[in-house]
Amino acid sequence: MIKGNMLVVHGGGPTAVINSSLYGVITEAKKNDKIDKIYGAIGGSEAILKENFLDLGKTDEERLKLLLQTPGTAIGSSRFELWQDDYDQMVEIFKRNNIKYVLFNGGNGSMDTCGKVSKVCKDHDIYVVGIPKTIDNDLSIIDHAPGYGSAAKYIATVTAEVGADVKSLPIHVCVIEAMGRNAGWITAASALARRKQGDAPHLIYLPERPFNEDEFLEDVKKLYDELGGVVVVVSEGLKNKDGESIVPPIFKTERATYYGDVSSHLANLVIRKLGIKARSEKPGICGRASIALQSEVDREEAVLVGQEAVRAAVAGETGVMVGISRRPGDEYGIETFLVPIEEVMMHEREIPEDYINERGNDVTGEFVKWCKPLIGGELNEFISFKDEIEEETKA
Amino acid sequence: MIKGNMLVVHGGGPTAVINSSLYGVITEAKKNDKIDKIYGAIGGSEAILKENFLDLGKTDEERLKLLLQTPGTAIGSSRFELWQDDYDQMVEIFKRNNIKYVLFNGGNGSMDTCGKVSKVCKDHDIYVVGIPKTIDNDLSIIDHAPGYGSAAKYIATVTAEVGADVKSLPIHVCVIEAMGRNAGWITAASALARRKQGDAPHLIYLPERPFNEDEFLEDVKKLYDELGGVVVVVSEGLKNKDGESIVPPIFKTERATYYGDVSSHLANLVIRKLGIKARSEKPGICGRASIALQSEVDREEAVLVGQEAVRAAVAGETGVMVGISRRPGDEYGIETFLVPIEEVMMHEREIPEDYINERGNDVTGEFVKWCKPLIGGELNEFISFKDEIEEETKA
Repeated sequence: MIKGNMLVVHGGGPTAVINSSLYGVITEAKKNDKIDKIYGAIGGSEAILKENFLDLGKTDEERLKLLLQTPGTAIGSSRFELWQDDYDQMVEIFKRNNIKYVLFNGGNGSMDTCGKVSKVCKDHDIYVVGIPKTIDNDLSIIDHAPGYGSAAKYIATVTAEVGADVKSLPIHVCVIEAMGRNAGWITAASALARRKQGDAPHLIYLPERPFNEDEFLEDVKKLYDELGGVVVVVSEGLKNKDGESIVPPIFKTERATYYGDVSSHLANLVIRKLGIKARSEKPGICGRASIALQSEVDREEAVLVGQEAVRAAVAGETGVMVGISRRPGDEYGIETFLVPIEEVMMHEREIPEDYINERGNDVTGEFVKWCKPLIGGELNEFISFKDEIEEETKA
Repeated sequence: MIKGNMLVVHGGGPTAVINSSLYGVITEAKKNDKIDKIYGAIGGSEAILKENFLDLGKTDEERLKLLLQTPGTAIGSSRFELWQDDYDQMVEIFKRNNIKYVLFNGGNGSMDTCGKVSKVCKDHDIYVVGIPKTIDNDLSIIDHAPGYGSAAKYIATVTAEVGADVKSLPIHVCVIEAMGRNAGWITAASALARRKQGDAPHLIYLPERPFNEDEFLEDVKKLYDELGGVVVVVSEGLKNKDGESIVPPIFKTERATYYGDVSSHLANLVIRKLGIKARSEKPGICGRASIALQSEVDREEAVLVGQEAVRAAVAGETGVMVGISRRPGDEYGIETFLVPIEEVMMHEREIPEDYINERGNDVTGEFVKWCKPLIGGELNEFISFKDEIEEETKA
């Protein structure tokens, strides 16, 4: 048997566990006698065309373990746009480097690339497999994507912590902005911060529902009068009923229109229209880079899909992505399966209607039940003497 | 001997370890036979006037330990303005409740209150002691204040993580905004993120130096051409040479003028003036509420100053704050001492000149040496194959 080389490529924005999948890929490939060298494309799909490959197999086990605690992507990434010519060229590059197995790790964009590469490689004995990754959780068909659980744990933890802070000194409305421009999965996960009635987040706004400014102000006013401190979590991509960003454009360049931040826009609205003190927090990419708030479940699943992708490619599968499905029953458990890339590409995954409440300012218990296992355990317990005295007073 | 009660009061904004000081206060007071009840003023100094006191001594040890992992303040806080009448009234309230020892935990504002309360209590056998707390580190006389070490560890960790993220996909300038409106101690601590040449943060701007827009754009452009991805850390309180906020006011109410965020203002400037993609992250109060990134050293010192305040009050000290001084020598160690409140109040503590580089876009090695022990250990180690290939290419 002639051994072939494997190439692994990362695409799009990083997650807290994309390097964990890379760990799964390298360690699994090292064990497989059909694989000779394990190349990393250093700098995304652009690096394939430049043949910018590094032999990752030489790295010892101890250093490889650092991948589990390294944010970003250790082999780089890109948002490089590919054309048909590029794909055709890739076949030659793979052959020249004796690459028989190609793994693409990424979201919808990378899976599109993965599908196209698998097509040009079809008659050349080169096997191309996708590894799912997205904090946004907008990959369809699968139950959830690696990267999402950690982003969910991050926003839930931060919301609980900011909630405790705001409750201590309840003088303002605090608007936290979560990533996820078109899908509200991350924003929704802030609901996992709640332990009891009255806990933050007090309001949650997702991009799946048109944002109604009047209702927002009404809800904030009511909660402020009741609680003093109000915590609102919003998606960075909130749109009005006409599908336009709720933030007016600040300026335009030839290439793009720039909007301000949704969180500071809404905080300013609260100050101006309600005369209530307000502030905004926008952790932004801190939320996809936090290792301290990585979900253990997410990390383990990320390693697993990396391993499975290697096994699938070596078994002769191509044009497929490793998917995650949830086992039925109350106890959380997953299985992996292979899904044809074309099926993944059919639609972006938004939050289903029954996960959003009627007024569109919160999620439902169904969502919480679905999401909870993904963050891997309970959040820190807090103590509040302030709550105790308030409960005594009420009793 | 007749036992007296103790009252503990929190003032101003929380830190990640203010509840750790409360843990020190309660556990130490429980052991002291001169102290009967340990009251918490639930809701800051305002709660003294309302006699909103809760007996904290009844809580068992296991639940008290939750204070070490609870953000915000477990007994609440306030920014309530006190008048001479209020102070006079307090003496009667303390007497009525048999309170002999009063502890104020806070920053400059709370120490001012503490000083005034100690004066009115002087001839009444009531002992008033301050516990230092501020993320901003702007309390004078002392080496550093509890709360700062954790805020420093937070910004250093976040900067390292965002740095790894930006390096993976080096297509933009990323501006991170740190808290600390008048003093740049937190912003400066982002420098601890660096492990080797070229690591983030690439530029650091402190409020102690007037911000020069032209120099900023020049520095960003140069670094972007060299690295692709640039990470800039800025204080939320940057001012121009006339001492005005660098962000133009957005709107005014009767009470205050509102400015936009410094980070998004600078990101927009980079896009507009340089045509380079840019974004901003503003974790805001997430940075003073993070338990995962609490500094162990900071937490231990916070417990200690709480304990010391109890001991000092019971020993008959009054009108003093517990201070922290650093032992001479290379190995980090601290001692506590008592400092008269008036001395603390004399000035806000800014970063000294020799901690800032000449161009005003970075800190010096002296600052890093001073700050490093406070975050309590090394940050996570990362692995980057991308760096390895770049180093190979250079070699």
